Amino acid sequence: MGLNQAKETPLFIGIDGGGSKCRATIYASDDTVIGTGVAGRANPLHGLAQTFESIQQSTELALRDAGLTVGDSKLLIAGLGLAGVNVPRLHQDISNWAHPFAKMYVTTDLHTACIGAHHGGDGAVIITGTGSCGYAHVGESHLCLGGHGFALGDKGSGAWLGLKAAEQVLLHLDGFAPATALTERLLNHFNVHDAMGIVEHLAGKTSSCYASLARLVLECANEQDAVAKAIVVEGAAYISELARKLFKVAPPRFSMIGGLAEPLAAWLDTDVVSKISPILAPPELGAVYYARQQLATSN
Amino acid sequence: MGLNQAKETPLFIGIDGGGSKCRATIYASDDTVIGTGVAGRANPLHGLAQTFESIQQSTELALRDAGLTVGDSKLLIAGLGLAGVNVPRLHQDISNWAHPFAKMYVTTDLHTACIGAHHGGDGAVIITGTGSCGYAHVGESHLCLGGHGFALGDKGSGAWLGLKAAEQVLLHLDGFAPATALTERLLNHFNVHDAMGIVEHLAGKTSSCYASLARLVLECANEQDAVAKAIVVEGAAYISELARKLFKVAPPRFSMIGGLAEPLAAWLDTDVVSKISPILAPPELGAVYYARQQLATSN
Repeated sequence: MGLNQAKETPLFIGIDGGGSKCRATIYASDDTVIGTGVAGRANPLHGLAQTFESIQQSTELALRDAGLTVGDSKLLIAGLGLAGVNVPRLHQDISNWAHPFAKMYVTTDLHTACIGAHHGGDGAVIITGTGSCGYAHVGESHLCLGGHGFALGDKGSGAWLGLKAAEQVLLHLDGFAPATALTERLLNHFNVHDAMGIVEHLAGKTSSCYASLARLVLECANEQDAVAKAIVVEGAAYISELARKLFKVAPPRFSMIGGLAEPLAAWLDTDVVSKISPILAPPELGAVYYARQQLATSN
Repeated sequence: MGLNQAKETPLFIGIDGGGSKCRATIYASDDTVIGTGVAGRANPLHGLAQTFESIQQSTELALRDAGLTVGDSKLLIAGLGLAGVNVPRLHQDISNWAHPFAKMYVTTDLHTACIGAHHGGDGAVIITGTGSCGYAHVGESHLCLGGHGFALGDKGSGAWLGLKAAEQVLLHLDGFAPATALTERLLNHFNVHDAMGIVEHLAGKTSSCYASLARLVLECANEQDAVAKAIVVEGAAYISELARKLFKVAPPRFSMIGGLAEPLAAWLDTDVVSKISPILAPPELGAVYYARQQLATSN
């Protein structure tokens, strides 16, 4: 950063692409927010054209919010965190893009979330929202665990909790599994009265649809429903084990990120909970830290 | 049938609609095959227009195969077995179709498979192929269990075996689960060398894609791989339990149908295996039995 300050101070834009939204934030060199923009999904795994469009659109909104013009994108140094760019082919595709920025640095959304959480420093994160995964970045080494996606993996995630709950309710309605408070809760949730009604609402649906049931599962577990509790305990045990595997690379800091981070914390093992540190900056700022680091290295 | 024989003998066509194919067979009154036709998918749950088109197309092919003309469909009395027609709305949609037959009788694909298996008589069936479900038909009562679809249910099915195996392999590659022969087998199957490679081949894929792994899981189980064995044992235990639930309505006969019926039989409980009777007729002939029964009742 010392090198950048010596020149004319550049503006940085941090972009966090995701399965449902793309967030762009323009920062001054002291990390103050100058403008923000939000556009649609930007997940290269689900389509490059849409990813580029969402990046462009969120950038334009952030520029306007900052009182700048669309053409000013040429002044911005961009840091991008995108899913799937650990796949070499996708990283190449993104790098080949005729982007609108002065410079562009791309890494995974996990990496930017991690360096954001730890203010640019080394550390580990577990993300538990719709999906789940673990990531650690210590020195030159990266460790990425889980995150195989719905319904293959992502244990302990919102979608996983919802899927397991629906499975148990359907087994219960068929007489294969014990009674559970989840049954009535799920039937009411969808306003249906039998297994067929639940199947109609869930068959072929996205992970977000299953994740919308997570709150209900956690509620039943907190009310001591045995079936819900068993599901949450199994999910939390996986997350605790995931944390311990990340700790093995000795990350100096550890944070939990995502919508389930807080409600799940009560179910994690105490050795894991005791190590949780607060998130210091959002992924967009993490993306800017990454861009600054890369720029400093290249100068 | 006595009533039909008294009139001019009509021709019957039996149609078995499914998620991948639609089979139509024209039968003489003594059940001999006069002509057959196969067309694309005919699952009302996945689109009515395509279902009608596949029914029409398979019928035309069967008519030509029988040396008849397309216009001769007006002479046929049709029995149809279609998924999803237990949903009243879908049954109504099918009944409202301006069909090309003299008469048309529609019931579920499970029902036609069951009365086919038992030569028109009462009985129970378990279907284990890509999916799994149980069905019993005794007197006026029907019992339908399972069949909630991938990845919500269908325990013990091909897709379920494949999903469980992939889950365990990914957990093993992340260090969360014990080593298994499935890991090398799955990596070789997709010709990849890590978890990411497996995920690329399976993420967002259909149940048929997962079901194509079932043979590999059964092989590993037969070779005493502990992880594969645990999966197959769990799936088979569900199927055994499913059979016992069907037995409670006292079906006079019981058959297993589908691609996994034979390989899974070795893993079922002996009280279940001892009750398995061979399939007496295919679902298309079951659909014709249904049409004849309905015609006799309406006359």
